[in-house]
Amino acid sequence: MRITVLSGGVGGARFTRGLRALLPHAEVTVIANTGDDMWLHGVRVCPDLDTLMYTLGGAVHEDQGWGRRDESRRVSDDLQAYGLGWDWFTLGDLDLATHLARTELLRAGLPLSQVTARLAERWQPGVTLLPMTDDEVETHVVVEDGRAIHFEEWWVRYRAALPARRFVQTNLAAATPAPGVLAAIADADVVVIPPSNPVVSVGTILAIPGIRDALRATAAPVVGVSPIVGGAPVRGMADACLTAIGVETSAVAVARHYGRRPDGVLDAWLVDERDASAVPDLQAAGWIARAVPTLMTDLDTTADIAAAALALVDRLP
Amino acid sequence: MRITVLSGGVGGARFTRGLRALLPHAEVTVIANTGDDMWLHGVRVCPDLDTLMYTLGGAVHEDQGWGRRDESRRVSDDLQAYGLGWDWFTLGDLDLATHLARTELLRAGLPLSQVTARLAERWQPGVTLLPMTDDEVETHVVVEDGRAIHFEEWWVRYRAALPARRFVQTNLAAATPAPGVLAAIADADVVVIPPSNPVVSVGTILAIPGIRDALRATAAPVVGVSPIVGGAPVRGMADACLTAIGVETSAVAVARHYGRRPDGVLDAWLVDERDASAVPDLQAAGWIARAVPTLMTDLDTTADIAAAALALVDRLP
Repeated sequence: MRITVLSGGVGGARFTRGLRALLPHAEVTVIANTGDDMWLHGVRVCPDLDTLMYTLGGAVHEDQGWGRRDESRRVSDDLQAYGLGWDWFTLGDLDLATHLARTELLRAGLPLSQVTARLAERWQPGVTLLPMTDDEVETHVVVEDGRAIHFEEWWVRYRAALPARRFVQTNLAAATPAPGVLAAIADADVVVIPPSNPVVSVGTILAIPGIRDALRATAAPVVGVSPIVGGAPVRGMADACLTAIGVETSAVAVARHYGRRPDGVLDAWLVDERDASAVPDLQAAGWIARAVPTLMTDLDTTADIAAAALALVDRLP
Repeated sequence: MRITVLSGGVGGARFTRGLRALLPHAEVTVIANTGDDMWLHGVRVCPDLDTLMYTLGGAVHEDQGWGRRDESRRVSDDLQAYGLGWDWFTLGDLDLATHLARTELLRAGLPLSQVTARLAERWQPGVTLLPMTDDEVETHVVVEDGRAIHFEEWWVRYRAALPARRFVQTNLAAATPAPGVLAAIADADVVVIPPSNPVVSVGTILAIPGIRDALRATAAPVVGVSPIVGGAPVRGMADACLTAIGVETSAVAVARHYGRRPDGVLDAWLVDERDASAVPDLQAAGWIARAVPTLMTDLDTTADIAAAALALVDRLP
C-alpha cells in the first residue's frame, strides 16, 4: 500500500511514526513543508524536514518533539559572544552537524530533494522524505506595522504574539514541486493530511503551484486529521495563524478551510472525541467524518489514530 | 611607532604577541595570509586570521598553537556520521562559532577585511588585523600525478608528505590588496617578516599584486626573522614547501629567496644562534644580519627576539 502524507513538523512527524508502527510494510512518502526553512549564519536550516528525519529515525528529543536527544549548545553560546545573528534561535550542536552537512551538499549544487535523501541515509526514517519543493520558498509574516519577518522569527522569537496581517511566501510563483511530489499524490492509495498546522505547514505545501491540483485530481481518497481539539490547537500556536487568515479555531472551520473535493482537497475529516458534536453537521454537508480520541499520547495510541483515519476512507488493510 | 607585520599563522602570531609585549603602545598592523582559507561544509574557514585573533586575544589553545582553549568536537564528530566532507579537518565547536559568525557577515555582503574587524571586536587583539586581500585567493598544491589539492588538504591530511610539484594560487591575477594593506606598508616605521612559512604564508602574501612592489618602495626598513633553525623549520613542514620550489632548507637560502631590496623585499635578516656561521656570508653580500636565540619558548624570550629584529634596523625605541 502506498500512503502519501503532507506534513509539517512535530504533529505530522508523530502521526507518521504511528502510521509506520501500524503498517510497517506500507510504502510511505512524506511531503514536507519547507516554508520554515532559513539561512542562519550561512547554513541552511530546515526545521520540518529535520523533525521528520529525527522523529522517524529515532533520534528526536522526545519531550521537546524536535531537535536531537542529548543536545548541547556550545557553538550557539559562543556565537552569541560575537553579538551576531538570531540569538533567539537555538542552533544545537548536533543539529548543527545536520545543517552543515546539508549546506555542504547544497553548495555543491545538489537540489534539496537529493540532499534530503542523502541525509536520510544516516537516519533511515523508513519513509521516502521529500521536500515540497527544491526552490527556496520561505514563509514570511506581515505584522501590524507592515513589516514582513521570517515565520520562524514570528513563531519562535515572538511566540506568535505579534498580530499577523497575513502570511506571504517568497518566490512562490516560480516554485515547482520537488521531483516525486506530484507522482506521490497521483499514485497513492491514500493521501493523509496529519494534524499539522493548516495554515503555515499544510497551507504552504498546498500553495506550491501544482500540488493543490494534484490533490483534487488524484484517484486516491484524501483524509485529514484535525489539529484543533476542543477549540484549541493540540500543540503550537495554530490559532494565531488561523486568526490571521480569518478562520475560526475549530475542527469544523479548519475542515471547511481545507474544503471538500473537488473544490477543496479533502474527502474525509477525523476529529477528536471532544468535537463529536461537529460530526453530524459535517456529514450533513457531505463529508465523511468521525470522532475518535486524537491525542497522540504514545505510539500505540497514535497508531490507533492512523488506523481510524485510514478506516474512514476504507483504506485500512 | 607604526609596525607592520606580514604573517602566517602560529609563528607569526607568537612573534607578534612578543612584539606587543615589548612595545605595548606601538601601532601594530598585521597583514595576514588568507591563502589557507577554505569553504568547508558551507562555512568560511580562515586558519591564519583565526590563529592571530585567538593568540593575540588570549583565547588560543596554547600547547597546540592554534584553535581555542577548552575546545570540543561535538559537531565535528556528529558530522562524520553523515560520511561527508573533510573528515581529516577538525572543526572545533568554539572555532565553528567564529566560522559561522564570519560566514553570516560574508553572506550579508561584507568584505573579509570588514568581517575580520567585526570579529576582532570580541577578541581585542591589540593590533589592526588585515587579510592580505578581500578576494578569495586559495593556495592549491599540484602533486605528482598533476592533481591540484587545497593546501590544507596537503598540509593537514597528507602532512605535506605528498611530493609537491608547485603551489598555485587561485584567482591571483584578479586579486587586489585589502583596504589598508598598501598604506600599512608605505606608512610604517618598520616592516617585519616574522618566522612564518616563507613559501605558503609570506610567499602568498607577496604574490598578491602590489604587495611586493609596496615592500620594495616603502621608506621603512624591512627586517625578517628566519623560520629555519639549524637546517630545519622550527615548526610545521616548511622544508617540504621549500623543496617544492627548489629552495634549500637553510636560513641563508630563505634569506636569498626573499632577496635584498631593491630587487628583493628585505634589508635585514635575523638568524638563530645555531646559524651564526651564516652571518659573515650574509654581511659580505650586503645584508644586515645577526644571530640570536630565536626559539619563541615564552613571552619574554619572544619579546627579546622582536627587540633584536627591530634593533637590527635601528628601530628599537
